[in-house]
Amino acid sequence: MAGARLIVPPEKLMDLTVRILGTLGVPAEHARITAEVLVASDLRGVESHGVAHLEPFYVRGIREGRINPQPQIRLVSRGPAVAVIDRDQGLGFVVGHHAMTEAMERAEKSGAGLVAVRNSTHFGPAFYYAMMAPPRGMIGISLTTGGNITVPPGGARRTYGANALSVAAPAGDGAPFVLDMSTSIVAGGKIELAARDRRRIPRGWALDRDGHPTREPDDYLAGGGILPLGGTPKFGAYKGFGLALAVDILCGLLSGSGASVHLARLQASHFFGALRIEAFLPLAEFSALMGQMVETLKAAPRAPGAGPLRIAGEVEHALEEERRAAGIPLHPEVVDSLQTLCQELGVTDDLR
Amino acid sequence: MAGARLIVPPEKLMDLTVRILGTLGVPAEHARITAEVLVASDLRGVESHGVAHLEPFYVRGIREGRINPQPQIRLVSRGPAVAVIDRDQGLGFVVGHHAMTEAMERAEKSGAGLVAVRNSTHFGPAFYYAMMAPPRGMIGISLTTGGNITVPPGGARRTYGANALSVAAPAGDGAPFVLDMSTSIVAGGKIELAARDRRRIPRGWALDRDGHPTREPDDYLAGGGILPLGGTPKFGAYKGFGLALAVDILCGLLSGSGASVHLARLQASHFFGALRIEAFLPLAEFSALMGQMVETLKAAPRAPGAGPLRIAGEVEHALEEERRAAGIPLHPEVVDSLQTLCQELGVTDDLR
Repeated sequence: MAGARLIVPPEKLMDLTVRILGTLGVPAEHARITAEVLVASDLRGVESHGVAHLEPFYVRGIREGRINPQPQIRLVSRGPAVAVIDRDQGLGFVVGHHAMTEAMERAEKSGAGLVAVRNSTHFGPAFYYAMMAPPRGMIGISLTTGGNITVPPGGARRTYGANALSVAAPAGDGAPFVLDMSTSIVAGGKIELAARDRRRIPRGWALDRDGHPTREPDDYLAGGGILPLGGTPKFGAYKGFGLALAVDILCGLLSGSGASVHLARLQASHFFGALRIEAFLPLAEFSALMGQMVETLKAAPRAPGAGPLRIAGEVEHALEEERRAAGIPLHPEVVDSLQTLCQELGVTDDLR
Repeated sequence: MAGARLIVPPEKLMDLTVRILGTLGVPAEHARITAEVLVASDLRGVESHGVAHLEPFYVRGIREGRINPQPQIRLVSRGPAVAVIDRDQGLGFVVGHHAMTEAMERAEKSGAGLVAVRNSTHFGPAFYYAMMAPPRGMIGISLTTGGNITVPPGGARRTYGANALSVAAPAGDGAPFVLDMSTSIVAGGKIELAARDRRRIPRGWALDRDGHPTREPDDYLAGGGILPLGGTPKFGAYKGFGLALAVDILCGLLSGSGASVHLARLQASHFFGALRIEAFLPLAEFSALMGQMVETLKAAPRAPGAGPLRIAGEVEHALEEERRAAGIPLHPEVVDSLQTLCQELGVTDDLR
């Protein structure tokens, strides 16, 4: 860990993000949604998808014409439970928020809603959209194509998307279940974090640009690739690869935009699902079963030295509560990047 | 590999399975479906879920009263796109076939059909039910709870289900995409196969009953456990574990039967999904995009010594074509088990 963190209240970070995006022609409501998703990522400790990406991904994407700040929305097809939406290269956050809302509206009527989206862009953390469902008594599913940084089993070079998936389900009064995972062995952002902190990465995560295993994050950043979940064929690399293609099929193929291998940098397709629990069984019954599952799992014997078992979303939920109260610690390089951006755009910087 | 294999035509194996099940009070149509699924598993090289399980899983399950050969079907809830079915501890194969059909009927009308099933039993290979969808122009999804042989991250003992998932999608004239995977690092059946062949297993697959890593399949069979996909937390064990719980939520919680941790041996819950592709986009367009994805992936650079890249379902498809023509090679222990069974039940054995 290099350098002291600056602690910033989430509201302040959100406000700054909105003002930065405003100078780039992003409508106020779209800027608000974007800020909320990015800051939610930092609140839940998913720094790899938070405001650290604001300048290099989204601001640069808008400036270079790869993200359209004022897109048209076109409903390509629709049915009682399904839809395909074309988003005209709009900001992925706005796209995700809108498409998940469409999925939930269908689930209200039909029990389930499934929406595929084409011509979107990088939408940040998949969990945000899946997590819109539990407060409405629904299970939420959010899938996205990722950048082409993953090496297929037996491959020598980054080829296909670090496609990601999230599933969120309510758990009564407890923290919702929130699985949020890349189908690669780690998300690319995790290696960016290691580079920022000058840390080596475990052997088995990445290859360099010549296809050799490496522990140096810079080798990955210089055109290397990340292995699929499973790592090697013996330990299930074909599962991580297969999951990624299943995500590609639902996001890229079903929406008509093509798989991750055919998308340019920052381009993305998504797929959202909402299942209304009461269409299956009473919500209270579902929540009781969730509570029983978690209780039984947590009571199982632990290995010597292992901490308590964590259910998906549990650590992030606790961190979110802590950071909402105490503020978000920002890495000095992220602070620098935001301050430079403010100067360039003539935005008042009140971070410190 | 110990002992020579007996080559058996698939029709003969199917016929024998039907006759065996008939002596146990299984209705003819149910026996036919069961035989077809088991033999399909052997045809596609998934020997871990084929006729090897007929005696120890299904025949014994019926005899011991844990599988009901003549169950009642109860539709617990239904909607235009969803349903919950209670299957009265019936044979999982029949359950899966019926519930997937229900899902596809809903998809015909609503674009998507999602069906959760409770009080079912072990349904064999997940791929079979997912694969019912592509010939009807649909994407098929099949999820199931598995036996409680998996050790959670940091755990010391087998605790939760080796929950499995399958996704199948049409690919024009080519082999369909068929992902079929356990959320554990390997399926339990793979370690049973290693025991049968007196092979050690890779370090990192399993723990013995005291929670120590082991390479002996017998240590696993004597009450040890299998690690989640990912293996250790550093390499994504929380992803394999989280996927398993997502499957538990959709199968066990949404159907009202409870998660895998609360199910007895052979008991299972399932979840089936069908997405009608034409409700999203023209099928020809989808197939073309699939072809382009596969072509681009296969053209990517390979590591020295690595064979060609395989897409999920490709190897199994080729094996199925080969074995439909040349017959299925059965392990001597499987042949013995079937012949002993025939003698016990008074069924004419024509395997040799």
